[in-house]
Amino acid sequence: MPKPIAIIAGAGPGTGSAVARRFALSYPVVLLARSQQSLDPLVDDITQNGGSAMGIPTDVTSAASMGLTMDKIKNKFGPEITVAAAIYNVASKFSMKPFLEQKPREFIEMLEPSIKGAFNFAQATLPYMLNGDQGQYPPTLIFTGATASLKGSSGLSAFAMSKFGTRAMAQSLAREFGPKGVHVSHAIIDGIIDTEKTKSFGQNAPDAKIDPQGIADSYWHLHTQPKSAFTHEIDIRPFSEKW
Amino acid sequence: MPKPIAIIAGAGPGTGSAVARRFALSYPVVLLARSQQSLDPLVDDITQNGGSAMGIPTDVTSAASMGLTMDKIKNKFGPEITVAAAIYNVASKFSMKPFLEQKPREFIEMLEPSIKGAFNFAQATLPYMLNGDQGQYPPTLIFTGATASLKGSSGLSAFAMSKFGTRAMAQSLAREFGPKGVHVSHAIIDGIIDTEKTKSFGQNAPDAKIDPQGIADSYWHLHTQPKSAFTHEIDIRPFSEKW
Amino acid sequence: MPKPIAIIAGAGPGTGSAVARRFALSYPVVLLARSQQSLDPLVDDITQNGGSAMGIPTDVTSAASMGLTMDKIKNKFGPEITVAAAIYNVASKFSMKPFLEQKPREFIEMLEPSIKGAFNFAQATLPYMLNGDQGQYPPTLIFTGATASLKGSSGLSAFAMSKFGTRAMAQSLAREFGPKGVHVSHAIIDGIIDTEKTKSFGQNAPDAKIDPQGIADSYWHLHTQPKSAFTHEIDIRPFSEKW
Amino acid sequence: MPKPIAIIAGAGPGTGSAVARRFALSYPVVLLARSQQSLDPLVDDITQNGGSAMGIPTDVTSAASMGLTMDKIKNKFGPEITVAAAIYNVASKFSMKPFLEQKPREFIEMLEPSIKGAFNFAQATLPYMLNGDQGQYPPTLIFTGATASLKGSSGLSAFAMSKFGTRAMAQSLAREFGPKGVHVSHAIIDGIIDTEKTKSFGQNAPDAKIDPQGIADSYWHLHTQPKSAFTHEIDIRPFSEKW
Repeated sequence: MPKPIAIIAGAGPGTGSAVARRFALSYPVVLLARSQQSLDPLVDDITQNGGSAMGIPTDVTSAASMGLTMDKIKNKFGPEITVAAAIYNVASKFSMKPFLEQKPREFIEMLEPSIKGAFNFAQATLPYMLNGDQGQYPPTLIFTGATASLKGSSGLSAFAMSKFGTRAMAQSLAREFGPKGVHVSHAIIDGIIDTEKTKSFGQNAPDAKIDPQGIADSYWHLHTQPKSAFTHEIDIRPFSEKW
Repeated sequence: MPKPIAIIAGAGPGTGSAVARRFALSYPVVLLARSQQSLDPLVDDITQNGGSAMGIPTDVTSAASMGLTMDKIKNKFGPEITVAAAIYNVASKFSMKPFLEQKPREFIEMLEPSIKGAFNFAQATLPYMLNGDQGQYPPTLIFTGATASLKGSSGLSAFAMSKFGTRAMAQSLAREFGPKGVHVSHAIIDGIIDTEKTKSFGQNAPDAKIDPQGIADSYWHLHTQPKSAFTHEIDIRPFSEKW
Repeated sequence: MPKPIAIIAGAGPGTGSAVARRFALSYPVVLLARSQQSLDPLVDDITQNGGSAMGIPTDVTSAASMGLTMDKIKNKFGPEITVAAAIYNVASKFSMKPFLEQKPREFIEMLEPSIKGAFNFAQATLPYMLNGDQGQYPPTLIFTGATASLKGSSGLSAFAMSKFGTRAMAQSLAREFGPKGVHVSHAIIDGIIDTEKTKSFGQNAPDAKIDPQGIADSYWHLHTQPKSAFTHEIDIRPFSEKW
Repeated sequence: MPKPIAIIAGAGPGTGSAVARRFALSYPVVLLARSQQSLDPLVDDITQNGGSAMGIPTDVTSAASMGLTMDKIKNKFGPEITVAAAIYNVASKFSMKPFLEQKPREFIEMLEPSIKGAFNFAQATLPYMLNGDQGQYPPTLIFTGATASLKGSSGLSAFAMSKFGTRAMAQSLAREFGPKGVHVSHAIIDGIIDTEKTKSFGQNAPDAKIDPQGIADSYWHLHTQPKSAFTHEIDIRPFSEKW
């Protein structure tokens, strides 16, 4: 019986990396992102710390690309893989712009990560989460949300549509796959995540931006919940955030 | 100064027709649906009752088709049209199916009415709602939602994603265009609508299905609300509905 | 068969008065407030405009006082009264204060209008809303809510608890009495109401405060909804309000 | 500097006991319930397992009783106590009954645990959570909610009002005390908890009732979240629960 694996889509700096490192403490992790270069340092880092990691460049918005990725995973881990955890952390494109200046194509493109991407990722991973109770914890599918999962702000219609949509899918999958023993969760990340890229965003008071490690620990906690006590939705925000 | 008009997308039997008839009591109405045949009886009916109606076959999921429709409207009513009310009532395709049996293409197609359609319709009509206070009531853009606007049920991920998404857009547009004097509303229709097609659905106890005329009257009420007292979201359900 | 009446609790300046005037166009109205003096001008005004109005000083937080009021109503209109509409518009006391400075007694007192008051009012009026379809419209019980019905803000725990609580009651009553033909609604008034008292609050840009007449018209619309198309919850806010 | 303590109100069988045992792994725990007898077995159990526990019979709905309890705590642990975690788990009385059969007194009594009790408990414990960062984790105040925190069901108006109200308080306190470094959370327990008392409720399929240990582990996880990544609200339900 092969060891269960964890698959993280959107394994970029910030949440994705932190989640990958956290789950790598218990599982071989497969990391998906657009480019191999962005994956290599994280793979190296996990490997050097005694974990097992594999990076596969994938365009999750393409069912074909996601299918090839699953083939590569099975080539490595064997056809009978079990997915202990699948984390969908691919960012929706964020662009605040007056509605009447948005172009149809650009609008649709902003939706693809949540619509095509979340769909492809869930379809590719769920079959390997249904094959029994091999793991220590119930298999877990987690979607990363945002403030815009609950509120459509001015100028952010595409982003909000994307995040509301992912939340709809998470609920629908939780209601379908929960009774089959799969734990489907949705996390509303309500605040700026503390990364290199966000150094200049907002204030830099201590703890005013979300430490990705905090998110990773909460995702791990969700994964460890027993079948009788699943959390479907959590919010995560800095102590000082207005909400 | 030309008389303001009302545009109803999704002018099929049920809600669309009832809304068209109601708004035709005060405005010339332009009715959009896929086929001319489905529009003709409604146009005739409104005309015979003393109203003014024009049916334009339109694929609202195509920006080009929606653009042509706006050209036809301006050909008829003049280039300086004012839109008093725009109602987006195009149905999202509804298909309850196990998630793992859904095909990517079919999944995306179910989302098009809410994503491309709602986007194209709002972009095409809003510019003609911003040009001042010519009308008796604030210009009004209403989106028709459903139970699935708030809840992602098992087997309905595409439908829920579509309806959550439209709600996100309605909120975002309300926050952007409200301060410009445009009233953007979203109606959660929570129950079966009483039409020919739904005769065999559920129970036929009196008033257990929603009379489309009731929806039309509520949409009209939303339209008449003054600038200081806009309702963004209402729910509408039969007295006997479980919720 | 006696003519159905409307009862408005909290018939002070602002929403209460506007609702009373609106419903007085169709029904004899009974107006409740703490003091006779505050009721007299409104009773006179409605009477002079051809309506029928009766003011009864009532402490709705006292079941005994509410019972006496119902006796007075039956003395005037006969024992077989029918209540077409009952509007609970009694303000919760509003006091923004650091939590640790709040006194237990003061905290409880802030809750009484919503807890005891809403309970007493609903218990006293619902029996007269169940006795059949004598009226033109389904009998309607409306609760006035606020921004704090949905959001517990800092320093407003008592106010929010009061408004969340009223909303809970409105939902519970809607689910119990809806199937019996009584329309129970809850309105979230999200903004400052334009009255003498609020002249100095916030900005005085046109339409930036809610015209009570707008609220009254929406309450009347709720009352006219048919049994197959009840709205349970609406929000009402100025076009320029941030939310 | 005295060791921080945890205080659990509502330390009965089920959630309260499990939470007490979990927090006793790290802190001396103070357990509150109406009667000493109900506390003794839990105190013994924790003590025999190497923990430190003290049971104090308390009527949390009385500010005086809650004050005496704090005096006893300071007598034992010293006047400079630090509260690492305060868990409010006192049950609201649950009684499903037609609204018109409810008595005013009984209605109010059902509300007291959430209104007076939650208020007294938060006022008594928060001052000892504000005094700095002595503990390993941010001080945490958790309120136990229920399905009825979000939905007012027929016949449950008092219960729903109680639970909506507690949720309002939790939000208000989170927004006031979060910026001061106190983590305030609210947990929606959506399902039957697996205890002796609920053996005959619903079905007894494996994991169909919530294991209190699962709740305790999630409460502990909330407590360990860093200041930059607080969760305010989680839901907890069995995998097979309809929602």
